[in-house]
Order: sequence, then C-alpha cells, then structure tokens
Amino acid sequence: MQGEGSEFSIKRRDLLRMIGLSAGGAAMYQAMGSLGLAAESPYKGTPKLQGAPRGASVLILGAGLAGMVAAYELRQAGYKVHVLEYNPRPGGRNWTLRGGDTYTELGGFTQHCRFDRGQYFNPGPWRIPYHHRGLLDYCKKLGVPLEPFVQINHNAYLHGANAFGGKPQRYRTINADYRGHVAELLAKVTQQGKLDAPVSKDDQALLLDSLRQWGALDKNYAYAAGHNVSNRRGYDKAPGGGLSAKPVDSQPLQLHDVLNSHLWSNLTEGDNYEFQTTLFQPVGGMGRIGEAFGRALDGSIRYNAKVTSIHQDEHGVTATYEDTRHPGRVMKAQGDWCICTIPLSILSQIPMNVGAAMADAIAAVPYAATVKVGLQFKRRFWEEDDDIYGGVTATDLPINNISYPSNDFNSRKGVLLGGYLWGLNAYEFTAMSPEERVRKAVEYGSQIHPQYKAEFENGISVAWHRSPFTLGCFATWSEEARAKHYDNLCQIDGRIALAGEHASYLPAWQEGAVTSALDVITRIHQRVVAGGAA
Amino acid sequence: MQGEGSEFSIKRRDLLRMIGLSAGGAAMYQAMGSLGLAAESPYKGTPKLQGAPRGASVLILGAGLAGMVAAYELRQAGYKVHVLEYNPRPGGRNWTLRGGDTYTELGGFTQHCRFDRGQYFNPGPWRIPYHHRGLLDYCKKLGVPLEPFVQINHNAYLHGANAFGGKPQRYRTINADYRGHVAELLAKVTQQGKLDAPVSKDDQALLLDSLRQWGALDKNYAYAAGHNVSNRRGYDKAPGGGLSAKPVDSQPLQLHDVLNSHLWSNLTEGDNYEFQTTLFQPVGGMGRIGEAFGRALDGSIRYNAKVTSIHQDEHGVTATYEDTRHPGRVMKAQGDWCICTIPLSILSQIPMNVGAAMADAIAAVPYAATVKVGLQFKRRFWEEDDDIYGGVTATDLPINNISYPSNDFNSRKGVLLGGYLWGLNAYEFTAMSPEERVRKAVEYGSQIHPQYKAEFENGISVAWHRSPFTLGCFATWSEEARAKHYDNLCQIDGRIALAGEHASYLPAWQEGAVTSALDVITRIHQRVVAGGAA
Repeated sequence: MQGEGSEFSIKRRDLLRMIGLSAGGAAMYQAMGSLGLAAESPYKGTPKLQGAPRGASVLILGAGLAGMVAAYELRQAGYKVHVLEYNPRPGGRNWTLRGGDTYTELGGFTQHCRFDRGQYFNPGPWRIPYHHRGLLDYCKKLGVPLEPFVQINHNAYLHGANAFGGKPQRYRTINADYRGHVAELLAKVTQQGKLDAPVSKDDQALLLDSLRQWGALDKNYAYAAGHNVSNRRGYDKAPGGGLSAKPVDSQPLQLHDVLNSHLWSNLTEGDNYEFQTTLFQPVGGMGRIGEAFGRALDGSIRYNAKVTSIHQDEHGVTATYEDTRHPGRVMKAQGDWCICTIPLSILSQIPMNVGAAMADAIAAVPYAATVKVGLQFKRRFWEEDDDIYGGVTATDLPINNISYPSNDFNSRKGVLLGGYLWGLNAYEFTAMSPEERVRKAVEYGSQIHPQYKAEFENGISVAWHRSPFTLGCFATWSEEARAKHYDNLCQIDGRIALAGEHASYLPAWQEGAVTSALDVITRIHQRVVAGGAA
Repeated sequence: MQGEGSEFSIKRRDLLRMIGLSAGGAAMYQAMGSLGLAAESPYKGTPKLQGAPRGASVLILGAGLAGMVAAYELRQAGYKVHVLEYNPRPGGRNWTLRGGDTYTELGGFTQHCRFDRGQYFNPGPWRIPYHHRGLLDYCKKLGVPLEPFVQINHNAYLHGANAFGGKPQRYRTINADYRGHVAELLAKVTQQGKLDAPVSKDDQALLLDSLRQWGALDKNYAYAAGHNVSNRRGYDKAPGGGLSAKPVDSQPLQLHDVLNSHLWSNLTEGDNYEFQTTLFQPVGGMGRIGEAFGRALDGSIRYNAKVTSIHQDEHGVTATYEDTRHPGRVMKAQGDWCICTIPLSILSQIPMNVGAAMADAIAAVPYAATVKVGLQFKRRFWEEDDDIYGGVTATDLPINNISYPSNDFNSRKGVLLGGYLWGLNAYEFTAMSPEERVRKAVEYGSQIHPQYKAEFENGISVAWHRSPFTLGCFATWSEEARAKHYDNLCQIDGRIALAGEHASYLPAWQEGAVTSALDVITRIHQRVVAGGAA
C-alpha cells in the first residue's frame, strides 16, 4: 500500500464500501484484489483457466509443490495430467521425517528415524511467512491446519565461541543493550547540536522523545540500570507476589562489550521480510502440505519414477523413466505439453531437446549445500531449565543455530533442529556419515546447552548435496546469472516449460515453487487456447 | 544469569554435569533451581509443605487463580480447605466468554453471548509471558495445552487519527524506517568524528558495521530505497515466481514524517518484558486454566457464595455469606486460618476485623477501569484481505487496539478483541450500555478496517468497573502507596492473610496471583507448624 496518493486511496475506499454494502464481502474482496489494495504479494489467486480443449494433456515431471500445484489446477481446468515422481511419496523437499521413516542418501547411507510418536523433523522448509499467500491459500483449500512458528524468542540465546567467554547471552539482553547504547549516543549528539542540518529543531525534540522511549533511556537520556532497562533486558530478580517479592534490576553491558561480541549481528533476523511475524508451520510437520496435495491428486501421480530423458517434437513431449524399485526397464509417458519441475542440478544431467537459451540457463545455476540435523531429547530441558519455548538460538559454531519446537509446549520429549549448516560447514558435514553429523551436532550444541549429553536420545541428518532427488538444497542465483539466464529459464521452449523455486525470485521458498507453477500454467493455457486443440 | 562471574559459572556447570550424569535430568533440574541457574523467576517450584497437623483447616475466599492455587497446594499438603466463590464458576478474572454464556453487570444489563461454536473472547487476561513460570507450571500440571500468542505482527497496522491522513501504516514500515533513519543519523556523526570521546576508534568501526546491518543502510551508510530496505519494510511488488516476477522496491518514508506521525511510540511493545516472545494462550481460551483448577478442586469450592463478613478470633476465622441465588439467608464457613483473595475494591466494603495497618492498605489501592469488547465477524477479512494473522493493531482512537486471533488461521469466522480501553476512554465506555460499547467499537474499528460494517455479526463487552465480583480490573499501586502499604497488605494479620494480583509486584498479571498465593501458604504453613496443631 506504499506509494499511493491518499486522494486516490480515499476514492478507492469509498468504492469498496459501496461494493461491500451492495454485493457483500466476497465481492468486496475480489474488488480489493483487482484494485491492488488487498495483496502486495504477486499472488493474485489461482488463475481461471477457461476453455481447455477436450483431451488436452500435460505431462508433469516432479510431485513437489510446483508440480502438484500445476497438476491440481490443470486437472481442475479440464486437462489430462500425468505426474512422474522419483520418490515413493509426494512433496519433494516439502518433507517431514517421523519415527519409522527411512532415508537413503547418495553414498548409500540409510538412516532409520527412531523418533517417538508425535515427534518430527523437517529436513527442508520449516516455516511459512505471512506474505506467502499462494502457499497459505493452498493450505486453506487443502485443509492443512497452521499454527504460529516462533522465530525470534527474546529468551533464546545468542552465542559466540569467543563472546563473553563462550557463555550464551539471552537475545533480550543484547537487543536491549545494543539499542539502548545506540539511542544514548544519538540522543547525546542531538542534544549537543551536532546533527546534520536537515533535522529541524522541532524534529530534534521529537527525535529525543522517541529515543528515550525506544531506547529505554532515563530522563537524562542515559541508558542506565533501572526499571525501564530491566523491563527490556530482564531483571536480576524478577517481580513476584507476596512478601520479599520486590524486583532487583539488572546491570546493562557496556557498549564496548556488546560491539566486540559481534552478537549484534543476530539482532535483525526477525525484522527481515521472510522472518517477520507472523510465521507459520503446518500442525504435525511441513510435510502435511505435500501429503494433502498427494491425496488430492490421488491417481494422477506415478511414484518411484526416475526420469531418464525428455523429448519434444511438434506434437507433444515424451519422457522416458524407470521404476526405481525395478530399474532397467524403460517406460514412457507423454503429454501435449510438459511442465518440468525437476531441480536444475538433476535436470542438467537428463537429455532434453530444448534450445541453447534454456539449456544454458539450466546449466548456469549451482545449488546450495545445506545440512540439517534433528535431535530427539528425553525431556524438554530448554523449556524446563532455560525457559525457552520455541524460537532460535544463533551461534557462530558450525551448527549455526538451534531451533526449539513451536508446538506441544510443556510436553515431555522434543526434537530440536540441532544444526542448520551452510557453506563450508555444510560441505564438511556432508562429507561425514549421518551418525557422525549427529554426534558433532550434539557435541557443538552441548557448548550452549550442557544438558545435551545427558538428555540426548537419537538423531537424524539430511545433507542436501547427497539427496538423490535434488543434489542440493536450492538454486543459488548470482545477480549475473539471473540477469543473463532467468528469463530464458522461464520462457516456454516449444512444448516444455520449467517451474519450481529455481524459476522464481524466491529461491529456497515454497512460495517460489507455487507462484512459478501458477505462472507457467497460465502461459501454457494461453498457448493452448490460442493454438486450438493441443 | 546476569552478574555471575564466569569462573563460578563454570564450576556450577561442572557440578551440574556431574549431577546430571549420576542422577539424571530431573535431579539436575532441581539442582539448577537451587543454584539459581535455572529460574530468574521468583517462582522456585511449588513449596514443599510438610508436617501439616491432622485436621488443620484453611478457609479460602475466592476461587480465582490465587484462591485455587492456595487450595490446590494446601489440600495436597493435608489441610482441609473450603473455598467460597461469588460466581457460579471457577476462575474469577481468568474467564472466557463463549456462545450461550450470559453475563450481568452492575446496573442490571445482561448480555447473552451469541458467538458461534468454537469462537471465544477473554474479558480478562489473554496472554501468558514465558517467564510466568508459576502459571506455566500449573498449565503443565493440570494438562492445559498452550499455543503461541502473537503480540507483534509486522503486517498489522499502526494507526493515528492524524497520522498519514488517518491511513493505517504497516508496523514493518514504521519499524524499518524509524530504525533506518536513526542508524543513518548515528552513522553520519560517527563518520564525522562527532561522537563523545568514550567510543574508541575500534569501537567506532564496529559501530558503523553494526549500524549498516541493523539499520539496513547502504554502503554509504544511507537509508535509501533498495533491496535491503525493502527486505525490512516490504516491497511495492514482492518477489514471485516465473516471468515478470521481479520485485519492485518500496520508497522509505522521510524521517520528518515518521517522527511527526508519533507512530514510533508503538514500536517497543514487543520488547517489553511482559510482551516479549514467546507469549502463550491456552488452546480454547484463557478460562481453560480456571476450569481445570475447578475440576481439580471438585467438591472443595462452594459457588454462588457472596461473602458478607469476615471475623477472626484466637481460634480461627469465620466468614458469613449468602447464596446469590437465594439471598437473605446468612450462612457461615470456618477455618483455622483464612486466605482472602477478594479484590481490595470489594474487600474494603466487607466488615473484617484486622489491624489498622492491613485495613489502611486495603483502602489505599484504587482499581483500574478497563473495558474490553469482543466482536464476531462473518469472515476473517483481516486474514483474507489484509494478510494479518494474529497480533495487534495499535491506534490512538479510544479503542486503543484491535487484536486478531492467534488461532484457527484460515478458518471462516473469527472474534476480534475490538477494543481494550484504558483510563478516561474506559470510563466513557463504562457509562454506556453494552450494546452502545459494541456499536462504538465497530464504528471506531471501521476507520482502520472498512470491512467492519459489512462483516460484523455480534459482540459483547465487559466494563470491569461494573463487574460485580471485582469492581475494577486490577489494583493500581502508586509508588507511594506501595512504599507505605504493600508489606502491610502482605503480612499475616492474626489468622488472616491476603493473596491475589493485588498482593504482588505483578499487578494485573495472573502470575502475581499465583506467586502471592504460594508465598502466603508457605508463611501460613510455617506458622501452623511452629504453633503446633492449628
């Protein structure tokens, strides 16, 4: 809603009120959408695909979110759809590991998940931002219940191996102290008249007022121990009830110590667009979405189908594949059109007759190495001992962070995301056996939570570069590659079009897969309708 | 954990590890508590009350949280407990209104709640902070499931009737722009060498680094439109998938406009100790806690009992009361001791023979006037149209805020907290009929959400000064009153002791009631044990 003239805005609002009064809420919502008032998201609802010719068919490669969104909408529009999926399950990277599940990675290691009933771990995506409207809408349509995902927890830790002697600090203390010192510094130069000219006297007065409140400064604009400061960073003794219940204020850290700890680098996570409140997780695990899509597409997906070639001619597209359970026998699937959602890391190894522009694009995008480790503990010591309920502890150890479950608070056991590794650390962990990764995650984590060693039960790890269905976690577009190749990747080549998070400006996010699929089916449908039957 | 020497801390940690390894997690938790490592909360677990003499009895007045915590623990310690409660239900201000409920306020207005099944509204407390360990522990013991309560929602609105022409702004835009401008101002004076001496050159370099990241500044330390800024305040067109999916950056507001809007005064709510993440709400409404206590104390609570006098002598305490359904007949209840949790606003009107110190304290504390309004709407337009899921919109209109449900996202209907009024605004609303309050809340709210008028179904309001069981919302201690009267209020007077949020440093909070009750029963038990049988 930024950048609108207020006059226009008022007119629109009047218009909406009239529509609302005469035609009811749903019509008003439609009108808001078409006026651009409702959605800042590029998602404008699912496209209306009308006039699909009888018998027109689309072959879809991959039953991840992109493939299943395409299949769901095209089927509803009257197309014959046929989906080939490598895994024995729907969802792709939308995936939850639960007790009893088995996972075999490249290199041959097989892990058997030994979590207790009700415990789970999301190796891939694990949170949904409020502005990922396409995905949220499918959760609504498919009846997948959502609950809040806690990203920032003021009582979780910020940890640096060399900060404060390795002793973890509460987020709230670093957050309060950094901001308090910044506010004090700026208030002082403002009082001293040292600001640049553009800030008027009146604005300086407002600035001082605001800094005092925002930074929890005292009446002299100092960030100093007292109620206001304890009310941000916490107390040495918190207020209670009855006699002897008087609170005891805590003492702020010095600016020098806060700056040198580098822990301030963790303070902005929750302000970033993708991690702002409100975030969601599906109740029971992210995989609930893929599972729901799979049920909705029952009969249209062929599982255990490994695509080995994709060939198009002027009439249609043929993919060859083999059944992963009975390899060697070549089978074929066909469609008038093909939507291919296979990750570029794998697609680049599959023969496919597309033009040089798309082929170059497919070859141009490397995939991220990330590793995730899930750890089950006998009891929720983070809740019981450390008062940490959900949220994320950030650390500069290789595990990068520890994430606490946002669900089933106060219950007995829990599974932590015990490590979410990136870059070099991820490569190092990828080279280890799964057991070794789990062992290392427990070792690192115990530097933050000494309870780890006594309470650990079992763990599982997914190193995405060893994932046979993706060979990496997500497409990492450089600015140069995007400028040169992105549109070529997204253009329909003959009868083949690509979709997936790799064909979006939202790499790694499920919403990228959803919106790219909706874009692709819209464009294919336009061609179909323009070109007559098939 | 502030203020500990790290050497001592390491020793304690070693000790804990040894305890954990030899005796297991529960013992380690106990040890951590006794070493002061676990809990910054004054709550140290429930007291162990051993050696209660056979037949010793405690009369408890009020079945709110304070009274029920006292009854629960004393009964478990072997005391005979008898609880008198004015309302026909347990919980007191721990209370949820649901469809079918009826509420009659002073003045005679009766409201019939017409919410749909599954919809609810908490007239009293509605959120639980992570550090309210006593209350959280009872939720665990009583099996009351908790879910996250969303306080800060970056996509909810900040609204000022005179700010930006009355057009609500997203929290994220004001948050990002205020911080960005503050960071830029401080970075510039830092670069210009205008900071006070105490910041060393090295620290200045770190400060600049940190401000750039924290404020989303560009490489010249300017807060200017671009990816980093859009990644905080949002985009004019958010990134999507497929062709034409390139994001369009938004333009920050000017510092002058941000300062003059006064909307910055709403930016710190989520940083305050009581509203920091993680906050909770019981699944199904706050009243689930009182209901669970009521079930646990089945048979010990007499409902519909209006206390009319409290008299103590050297042997015990006698309360007279009448049945609110059959007034006029005086009944009596007795105990060796009495824990009175009746709000001071009401207690000050009940004859009770305590000393001048306690009597003066009881008379010294006024109660807050607050009004809450719950509004049911036909559809969740805040989710569907405005992308707001949970959280709070702040406004300078009399309704003060609008709070969106943190549960049942994506479902059809919803109940908003349509107003939470304080001070003069609350007095004004208290003077209205319940219907008029609801009408006004809808009128004010429609300035922020034009959908209100078309979507509103029904509402209910509670003006706490008209509540017959509290005559106000909570005790408002002035600093002077607290210095003079607080300890006198909490001291046991003969055989009578008071408990409740009013007898705590946590006014209005349920944790104040819980911890004051635990403190009172500990002290009474000490006297009982010291004094022999009763």
